[in-house]
Amino acid sequence: MIDQRLARQIQFIVEVDKLKDVFRQTVLIHSGRSENDAEHSWHLCLLVIVLAEHANLPTLDILRVLKMLILHDLVEIDAGDTFAYDTARMADQHEREAKAADRVFGLLPPDQTADFRALWDEFEAKATPEARFATAVDRFQPMLLNVKTAGSAWKRHGITHDRVVARNQHIAEGSTALWEYAANMIAEAVQAGNLAPGKKDETGTERS
Amino acid sequence: MIDQRLARQIQFIVEVDKLKDVFRQTVLIHSGRSENDAEHSWHLCLLVIVLAEHANLPTLDILRVLKMLILHDLVEIDAGDTFAYDTARMADQHEREAKAADRVFGLLPPDQTADFRALWDEFEAKATPEARFATAVDRFQPMLLNVKTAGSAWKRHGITHDRVVARNQHIAEGSTALWEYAANMIAEAVQAGNLAPGKKDETGTERS
Repeated sequence: MIDQRLARQIQFIVEVDKLKDVFRQTVLIHSGRSENDAEHSWHLCLLVIVLAEHANLPTLDILRVLKMLILHDLVEIDAGDTFAYDTARMADQHEREAKAADRVFGLLPPDQTADFRALWDEFEAKATPEARFATAVDRFQPMLLNVKTAGSAWKRHGITHDRVVARNQHIAEGSTALWEYAANMIAEAVQAGNLAPGKKDETGTERS
Repeated sequence: MIDQRLARQIQFIVEVDKLKDVFRQTVLIHSGRSENDAEHSWHLCLLVIVLAEHANLPTLDILRVLKMLILHDLVEIDAGDTFAYDTARMADQHEREAKAADRVFGLLPPDQTADFRALWDEFEAKATPEARFATAVDRFQPMLLNVKTAGSAWKRHGITHDRVVARNQHIAEGSTALWEYAANMIAEAVQAGNLAPGKKDETGTERS
């Protein structure tokens, strides 16, 4: 007798193999090819176990952070990757992704559908310390890859320093130490000519 | 002031981006390209959070299982992937990988070098319930991908049913339910012509 619950779980595991075929704007540090969502998700998990001590809340539930990050991009199997600076596609991003969450998590047995959806909703809402730290590493990692590939995705899309700051400064809500490191790293990227400075107003202040 | 400990941790995170460029014999279910170690590691983490209830020990420390799987293939950055049925390369596999573990984990601050090495040693020794369940999913996932791609890696390397059983039956030590499912799945693969039956002795019993 095949366990029907297990069979359904395996069907989900087969479906989400598609995450390896969802490609992002970021390129890999050493080979330069486009990164996919599955290997990105793995890298975030690794960041968590290396950098957890830098979270604002030292008593973080690391297991819940990892679960959120393992799942956070599964909605992109249907909704596709939305580039962090694509304001047009970001307008209906949550709607597209919520529909995808219904279908993809719905492949699981009902109790797991509910558990996984709750984790994804928590990640999206960014209201808990766990979701804020998960978001911090999710925003830090693409910046790191951009810095280490001479600003590849930034240059390709004409992204400026002020927009990188505006998009990523919320890292500080999960980890002030990580945002301090990141702010310094992107300032150096401007110095190195890998990130264009933002437009300045009449006082010389960058506008975001 | 840049935190020197954080700078060292980031250096490690940059180095291990290379795991995305270590390719395996398994191919992806939907696109058919070769799988890499980073996305494989993500998939294993997903299997753990979906299938944990099927572990032989229901009180498993899931966080430790996930940490082991996030790290388990990092040694292949230096040592390369060793195909599960390549007995020639398997002879010095542990020696090559232990040397790689020294270098790769050694990039971290000393306390984390020790922690990560202990997790990898635990995974390799397969003596704890956590390591046995981690190993079970690490062996199950490539079989699943092979089954779903008409036996691609098995056919390419002339692997027979008896060898698949001999290599993977230890899954039962981590999860008897998962091995039962797997044994049925590979028997069906033989029926479907995607996995060659093993050589039989004079009594009609497959030899492994």
